[in-house]
Amino acid sequence: MKPYKVIELHKSIYENNDAKAAELREELKQKHTLLVNMMSSPGSGKTSVLLRTIEKLGRNFKIGVMEADIASEVDAERITRSGARAIQLHTDGMCHLDAGMTRQGLEAIGTDQLDIVFLENIGNLVCPAEFDTGAAKNVMILSVPEGDDKALKYPLMFTVCDVLLINKMDVTEYFDFNLNKCIAAARQCNPNIMIIPVSAKTCEGMDIWYTWLAIQAEAYR
Amino acid sequence: MKPYKVIELHKSIYENNDAKAAELREELKQKHTLLVNMMSSPGSGKTSVLLRTIEKLGRNFKIGVMEADIASEVDAERITRSGARAIQLHTDGMCHLDAGMTRQGLEAIGTDQLDIVFLENIGNLVCPAEFDTGAAKNVMILSVPEGDDKALKYPLMFTVCDVLLINKMDVTEYFDFNLNKCIAAARQCNPNIMIIPVSAKTCEGMDIWYTWLAIQAEAYR
Repeated sequence: MKPYKVIELHKSIYENNDAKAAELREELKQKHTLLVNMMSSPGSGKTSVLLRTIEKLGRNFKIGVMEADIASEVDAERITRSGARAIQLHTDGMCHLDAGMTRQGLEAIGTDQLDIVFLENIGNLVCPAEFDTGAAKNVMILSVPEGDDKALKYPLMFTVCDVLLINKMDVTEYFDFNLNKCIAAARQCNPNIMIIPVSAKTCEGMDIWYTWLAIQAEAYR
Repeated sequence: MKPYKVIELHKSIYENNDAKAAELREELKQKHTLLVNMMSSPGSGKTSVLLRTIEKLGRNFKIGVMEADIASEVDAERITRSGARAIQLHTDGMCHLDAGMTRQGLEAIGTDQLDIVFLENIGNLVCPAEFDTGAAKNVMILSVPEGDDKALKYPLMFTVCDVLLINKMDVTEYFDFNLNKCIAAARQCNPNIMIIPVSAKTCEGMDIWYTWLAIQAEAYR
C-alpha cells in the first residue's frame, strides 16, 4: 500500500468560485489550519522549498502537503519520505485548482491535526492565478533561470501573491539575471508583495521565509 | 511608430478547433509557408532559440515570428532587432492559442513572402498542448533547470510535439539533471519525438536543430 493517497479531482460544479473560496478560507480559520497556495512555473523548485520548510518547521508545526499534478506521483513520494503527511491530487488534465477542488483535497488529507497545509498547485504561471483556492496566503516561486522579465509577461500571478520567493539564487552567475530589475518589475505589479531571494539548495535566504511562515502559522493557532 | 504590430486577439468562436486547425494547415501548405508552434514553460529560452535560428537560417529562408504573450512586448522587440518580421499577439489573459487565434495572427503578419513562421506560444506546459493551432510542426523546449521529470508531470505536451529541444545544456553541471532519465521519460510519452540537447547560449547542438528545420522548410517550398 502506498504511504499517501492519490485523489482524482472532479471539476467543480460551482460557478461562484470566489464565494466558495471565501467560505473555505473562513472555515479553515475556525479550524486553525493555515492553507498556503504555492504557485510557479514547472521546475522552479516548489517541492524542494517545501522539503526544506518541513525539515525546519516540522517540529513546531504539523504540516501537510497536497501535491497537485496532471499526472505522476513523484512529488507526493518525495514529500512522504520527509515524514510530512502528503496526498497526491490528480486534476484530470486541468491546468489549475479552484476552491471546490481544493476542498476535495482537504477532505482527503484531513485537516484536524494540521497547523499548516501547503497546496502545491499545477506548475503554470497563467491559470492558477485566476482561481482563488481559498488559501489564506498565496506564494509564488520564480527561479533565476526563468529570467528577470517574468512579471512583465505574467503580471496577474505577481499581483495575487503575498510572497515572491526568487529561488535558485546560487546559480545567478551562470544566467543573465538582474535581481534589481526582477524586483522592480514584480513591485510594479504588486507594491505590497514580500520578495525573498533564496536558494533551497544552499539554504541562502530561507530563514526569512521560515520566519514569515511561522508568524502566519502562529497567528492561526 | 513601433517596428512591429501589436494584435489584441479575440477568443475564437469556433467549437470545432480540430477542423479549423486542419483547414489552416492545408491552406499554409498551399501557400508554401511552414508554421512551427514553439511551446515551453516560461523562461526556458524560446526567444533565444529563435534569435539563433534567425541568425543562422535568415539568409536562406524568409522568417516571421508571432510572439504570443498575455502582456508585454519584450519578445517582439528582441525579435525585431534581429531583422526578422515580428508581431506581438496579446491573448487577453488566455493561456493558449487555438487555430482561430493563430489565423488572426497570420493575417496580421502576412504570410505571402514568408517561408517559415514561428508561433511562440504562451509559456505554459499545460493548456497550449490541448489546442491544435494549425501548425505543421510542434516543437517543445525544456530547459535543464526545470528538471528531468517534466514528462512524467506534463505528458500531453511531450505527446503532441515532433521535436524536443533540451535547452541550457551548458549549465547541466550546476543542476541535478539526468539527461538519460529525461530522454527516457519523454520517449515513454512519445516514442517518435526527436530529441536534441542544445544550448542557445553556446550553440552546442544547434546545428542539428537548424538542419532539421531547413529540411522541413525545403519540403514546403
